[in-house]
Amino acid sequence: MSSTPAPTSSFPLPLGFQWGAATAGIKASGKPDLALAICEGGASAAAMFTSNQVVAAPVLVGRRHLAATGGRVSAVLVNSGNANCATGDPGIEACRRTCVAVAEHFRCVFDEVIPSSTGIIGVPLPAEKLISAIPVAKAALGNTPEHLLAFANAILTTDTKRKVARATIEGDSGKPVRIFGCAKGAGMIGPQLVPHATMLVYLFTDLDATPEQLRSALAPAVEQSFNSISIDGDMSTNDTVLLLASGKSGVQATDRILAAFAEALRLVCGSLAHQVVNDGEGVGHVVTLEIIGARNDAEARQIARTVANSPLCKTAWSSADPNWGRLLAAAGRAGVPFDPATVTVSIAGLPVFANGVRSPDFDEAATHQAMSAREYTIALDLGQGPGHSRFVTCDLTHEYVSINADYST
Amino acid sequence: MSSTPAPTSSFPLPLGFQWGAATAGIKASGKPDLALAICEGGASAAAMFTSNQVVAAPVLVGRRHLAATGGRVSAVLVNSGNANCATGDPGIEACRRTCVAVAEHFRCVFDEVIPSSTGIIGVPLPAEKLISAIPVAKAALGNTPEHLLAFANAILTTDTKRKVARATIEGDSGKPVRIFGCAKGAGMIGPQLVPHATMLVYLFTDLDATPEQLRSALAPAVEQSFNSISIDGDMSTNDTVLLLASGKSGVQATDRILAAFAEALRLVCGSLAHQVVNDGEGVGHVVTLEIIGARNDAEARQIARTVANSPLCKTAWSSADPNWGRLLAAAGRAGVPFDPATVTVSIAGLPVFANGVRSPDFDEAATHQAMSAREYTIALDLGQGPGHSRFVTCDLTHEYVSINADYST
Repeated sequence: MSSTPAPTSSFPLPLGFQWGAATAGIKASGKPDLALAICEGGASAAAMFTSNQVVAAPVLVGRRHLAATGGRVSAVLVNSGNANCATGDPGIEACRRTCVAVAEHFRCVFDEVIPSSTGIIGVPLPAEKLISAIPVAKAALGNTPEHLLAFANAILTTDTKRKVARATIEGDSGKPVRIFGCAKGAGMIGPQLVPHATMLVYLFTDLDATPEQLRSALAPAVEQSFNSISIDGDMSTNDTVLLLASGKSGVQATDRILAAFAEALRLVCGSLAHQVVNDGEGVGHVVTLEIIGARNDAEARQIARTVANSPLCKTAWSSADPNWGRLLAAAGRAGVPFDPATVTVSIAGLPVFANGVRSPDFDEAATHQAMSAREYTIALDLGQGPGHSRFVTCDLTHEYVSINADYST
Repeated sequence: MSSTPAPTSSFPLPLGFQWGAATAGIKASGKPDLALAICEGGASAAAMFTSNQVVAAPVLVGRRHLAATGGRVSAVLVNSGNANCATGDPGIEACRRTCVAVAEHFRCVFDEVIPSSTGIIGVPLPAEKLISAIPVAKAALGNTPEHLLAFANAILTTDTKRKVARATIEGDSGKPVRIFGCAKGAGMIGPQLVPHATMLVYLFTDLDATPEQLRSALAPAVEQSFNSISIDGDMSTNDTVLLLASGKSGVQATDRILAAFAEALRLVCGSLAHQVVNDGEGVGHVVTLEIIGARNDAEARQIARTVANSPLCKTAWSSADPNWGRLLAAAGRAGVPFDPATVTVSIAGLPVFANGVRSPDFDEAATHQAMSAREYTIALDLGQGPGHSRFVTCDLTHEYVSINADYST
């Protein structure tokens, strides 16, 4: 099994898919804003969606379609530049019209089209622009890395980098099974996906698997990746992770293959999640929180999430300030009972806090130096039990404020 | 009853107290950093402290003292510049030594001294500096507005303004009962005080009341004021609200007087809480969230707190950006079930969102103009029930990042 963050032109893509993109004119920038993926004959599918109470129209429609088909997908239509959220019944209708148009073009069942949208909330979706651009995307379809990268580019909004990851596992008699994933997301990133998030992630594989098998692999992979990251803690109304399996590798998902697939999927999702944080709005430092020694994993993650979203921790990280008191204060307000006397904290492997007090070996200058790196790990051991969480987050910078406060009438 | 934010030199202060301040040399700035309040003969007391799991030594010691005396306080010793938190047993011991020193100077019982600290976490408290400055503060004691303002100044850290509020109620046969409060706090403000927050609040009154009566008035006042504000959402390890009643007005707390007192206390706490947000680190806009129509008050406050602490909402407020989709998205991730179709949102009284879609009367330019004011209200009606919460918060600005990222080795 191999997993690397970027494809090369010689990388064998999952069989059975075609990808394309077009410019529908939704983004003011004039960049491509429509992405289309097709699986002729249909793919098995598993998906996880945002747990926000305010849910975008494409999430509502996508959930319904997956329920109606039992996890069968022939096409994925993504637009960037408009979230189609808080748009009421007209938003649902606009979404459905785009799905109908895709179904007509590809002669598939309407329910087998999964829509996704990302962009501003509350602005009516210009469905006609999308529908007019579908033939352009259709003409651009293909199965080369360039086609897939065009898809991966068209789903971006404030992202500065494309996010892709891939893996291969070996099937029976040496036949390869391929996984390719791409993601978008740089702000409003604090996903908490439930088995049904504006982080968008599309995972393509040519494994021959049922929707149930795909769900059993996807849920733990998402739990340890996209559900364990935060940029600003603001959960989107549109977050979606969609896994499609064409079956065209000819490799059936036996127990052994499925275990290997689940592990490879976990690596691909981990890489994509890390890339999302690394490209977060204004990010200067990527910080991995290793919370161990909690009573259970849920409490460990609750502490990780609270520290990850603490403005005081995040601003300290932006200047490599070893102000560990802010870490403790944030952990202490997570709603998880613990005794500070049993807590141990280290930053980039350097001792900071132990036995209820500042570590005697605390070296402020060395810790500041270590925190000047682009990436480092903060480890917090609660000393209570076996619970742990690995959570990837980032600092809060002037640039984040500029990006999100940029407004003029 | 009257309530105003600032005292004048002619304002009659609560009888029975003396206030003083000194420079102990803890603050690098050389500003006064020790504050002392004395109630000769002892005052009835009620207090609420931080619910953080990581609790500063003075909070631990203060809780114990109040439990030991059943709510009797003769002296309050506050230092700024050092939180005496995450300092282990030596921190407790340092705190106790300062209490012993105060008790010896004023010939009171050791348990009747309440200590408070605010400042950096994790640095050993230089108790000897405090103990050496106690005689200076003692010599400076007095009962004029100037003395009280010296007390209110010495407790400040990153605050740019002193925060004081007062009220008077009329007792039997026209005798006045006076309430005076002062507060500090500009960052790490997301208090959730439990009947036991580095927001420090001291409330002095000359009402004749028992500790139980004081607690019955303090809890609801704190709930609607300090527990309903947020600057950065980071709950401190040291937050403390202390109410002292000298009894020297000669007015006993009958049911009628206690009700009037509770209402006056609520106004004083509301004013102080508002002043804390208004002086928050880097604040450009003070935003009051009126969440109504929730199933209950707790759910309303949960939504208010989530919106108040959303980086995307806070950055939008900093530029007066009427990006109401961020409000909805934040409300939707608060963990409170609701149907967006029944939600109504207005900003500064201007319609924004209703019936599941952008209000047809939404006027972006007018809303932007209204949000350019220093203060305004955002109202969100969930349309579910009678629950409500009034929550005061602020924007997230470049200046906040600068203040909290300011670090040099």
